[in-house]
Amino acid sequence: MKIVQKFGGTSVADIPKIRSAANKVKSEVDKGNKVIVVVSAMAGVTNQLVGYCKDFPSSYNLREYDVVVSAGEQITSGLMSIALQDLNISSISLLGWQIPILANDAHAKALIDSIDTSKILSHLDRGEVVVVPGFQGVNKKNDIVTLGRGGSDITAVAIAASVDANYCDIYTDVDGVYTSDPRIVKNARKIDKITYEEMLEMASLGAKVLQTRSVELAMKFNVSLRVLSSFSGAPGTLICSEEKVVEKEIVSGIAHSMDEAKITLVSVEDRPGIAASIFHTLSEYNINVDMIVQNVSEDGSTDLTFTVSKHELLSAKNAVENNQEIKWRKLLIDDDVSKVSVVGVGMKSHAGVAKTMFKALAEKNINIEVISTSEIKVSVLIKAAFTKEALVCLHKAFDLDQ
Amino acid sequence: MKIVQKFGGTSVADIPKIRSAANKVKSEVDKGNKVIVVVSAMAGVTNQLVGYCKDFPSSYNLREYDVVVSAGEQITSGLMSIALQDLNISSISLLGWQIPILANDAHAKALIDSIDTSKILSHLDRGEVVVVPGFQGVNKKNDIVTLGRGGSDITAVAIAASVDANYCDIYTDVDGVYTSDPRIVKNARKIDKITYEEMLEMASLGAKVLQTRSVELAMKFNVSLRVLSSFSGAPGTLICSEEKVVEKEIVSGIAHSMDEAKITLVSVEDRPGIAASIFHTLSEYNINVDMIVQNVSEDGSTDLTFTVSKHELLSAKNAVENNQEIKWRKLLIDDDVSKVSVVGVGMKSHAGVAKTMFKALAEKNINIEVISTSEIKVSVLIKAAFTKEALVCLHKAFDLDQ
Repeated sequence: MKIVQKFGGTSVADIPKIRSAANKVKSEVDKGNKVIVVVSAMAGVTNQLVGYCKDFPSSYNLREYDVVVSAGEQITSGLMSIALQDLNISSISLLGWQIPILANDAHAKALIDSIDTSKILSHLDRGEVVVVPGFQGVNKKNDIVTLGRGGSDITAVAIAASVDANYCDIYTDVDGVYTSDPRIVKNARKIDKITYEEMLEMASLGAKVLQTRSVELAMKFNVSLRVLSSFSGAPGTLICSEEKVVEKEIVSGIAHSMDEAKITLVSVEDRPGIAASIFHTLSEYNINVDMIVQNVSEDGSTDLTFTVSKHELLSAKNAVENNQEIKWRKLLIDDDVSKVSVVGVGMKSHAGVAKTMFKALAEKNINIEVISTSEIKVSVLIKAAFTKEALVCLHKAFDLDQ
Repeated sequence: MKIVQKFGGTSVADIPKIRSAANKVKSEVDKGNKVIVVVSAMAGVTNQLVGYCKDFPSSYNLREYDVVVSAGEQITSGLMSIALQDLNISSISLLGWQIPILANDAHAKALIDSIDTSKILSHLDRGEVVVVPGFQGVNKKNDIVTLGRGGSDITAVAIAASVDANYCDIYTDVDGVYTSDPRIVKNARKIDKITYEEMLEMASLGAKVLQTRSVELAMKFNVSLRVLSSFSGAPGTLICSEEKVVEKEIVSGIAHSMDEAKITLVSVEDRPGIAASIFHTLSEYNINVDMIVQNVSEDGSTDLTFTVSKHELLSAKNAVENNQEIKWRKLLIDDDVSKVSVVGVGMKSHAGVAKTMFKALAEKNINIEVISTSEIKVSVLIKAAFTKEALVCLHKAFDLDQ
């Protein structure tokens, strides 16, 4: 089998941790697998390098920023290769520009265009483990570019897709994806298998294990992702396509996000183009809008509610107030809310999920402020103080306990 | 004018120091000069990266070592470019592989084969400052190689030679080359101009300002080197060819080295091939021999004395004792010695330097144990305890005071 193993920053935080990660590689090599290792920068290094750049008063040039921050992963890739050789495993590091991993010009948030697999494959064929620094590529001008937050996961998935790897294993400091946040819901269980779609909803709803972009990429190229712990031998969570998940749970997990703030325009005049005008304004201010809810109109006016990230609440308020085209009676803001979501591919074919959810919350006297649904999730906005209670009761209501 | 400015590790140790180095670059740009900046790693970074590699029990692969340690200079080059842009100076960093600086395969101590100047020159022509990480190049296989100790000075001189720069300025934490070590000889004066040959002798005799290799390279390509302080505006020392030094001092400086140990073979049989046999053995043990002195033979036997670095004394002793071909009566070792040298191109045409030297030492009752001379220097080995007294009296005897 061909396997990509990706180790995050906490998994390569110091030399003993790099050695222990190298042992995870060794156990795959010992099984006869061909392995490509993708590494992040040692924990703290990227922040230090970014901090250096931010010490300059003017906004720094992103081309040079990429030269600076990409050094972090370069260091780890050399050290990982040395650690493998120390275990008598032949290995070689190949940097983004040496492969090359071709990406576009968007410094600090580049997208991978293509990966030339010839060098990687010829080293694998010679029985060597190939170590690749995550997060970096090279553009057509031969400048180093970095891929932005979560970039090392992207590198791992993109390489797995390009060499047609059997698995892309993401080693991290948790041992898988859970039915809910185990720090809050003590009965939360590790999920053995989950579909890309569910994982995407879980990720975008606050589960921090994987970045949305890398899951999207894995789904696009049908790469079997496994989330595994660097520090235990536990089996982890497999993220794969729907047909590989035989026993589909109606509900796979309960996610939540505390980073929500709500804006309500009371009695907006209800005519075509009003919503378009508001969200055009917000996008011009580069503000990401999450939930949008508008009730049916009664007397020619309606209430419009939407949510944004907490730190963008004030700029969103300013943006809306500066829009001269629309009138409303009152503008309410509220950042004391959280979003709780029930996720599962099974609910596509099952009615009743919303009913079970609303009933469980009602029994606890938790008021639902906003509701939003997609094919595989139902999200509600509630008072922040009730988050834990909501998670626990929903976890139980959907039989996720035990 | 075209100028190369090289900043060592202490000159780029943190962001404020990088900003202050960038101001040194700005003042050259403001004069209308085209500038290439060569940077070392921030002080301490290279040691940290080397330390990571040394944390592995087995001897680490030098190809991967080079991937790891070259990241230090890469980081500084990006930061220097950002610092220059912060001062409104257009700049771009070009890494060793981007230029490329082609070097041979000797990882961790590579020699530069050639520098492709086309990219550098085209950026200079666009009015940009080019920032180059020192210490690194790329071999024909496209692997990163590093140049070994003092490598950033080598990079600076090699680039200065290849673009035919008017000056190669080495910024460091001292403000020039002194007639003697100013920490010992309080009357030591900064030398305004010194020839390559003298600087070479001074460097190999213990003056730590510049590595021998970079001075040799500058001499070979007739690059005018200036040693300057990063922290003062003082004029520094110019190192150039003999014809540019108009007023030649008979003696330019008094150098010393404490890193000396002496081995004497008493009553070695005196026949052809004896010296060859001994020094063949030493070179097989990779031991560097400095001074070698053999007196004329009297009764078919002679005394042979040579010096090595203090830390190689014991292995040198073992090496000689393991040589079965030669016999001697007694083997003496002594590491309580120092070497004091009088250096100056002027002495080529002046007898009397040795006489002045020996007379000054004799007046202080300092015994000379070994003497060795070259065209432009006289070195003596004395008891270590007399080093300071010897330096001070010689400095005075050759009119270097005031």
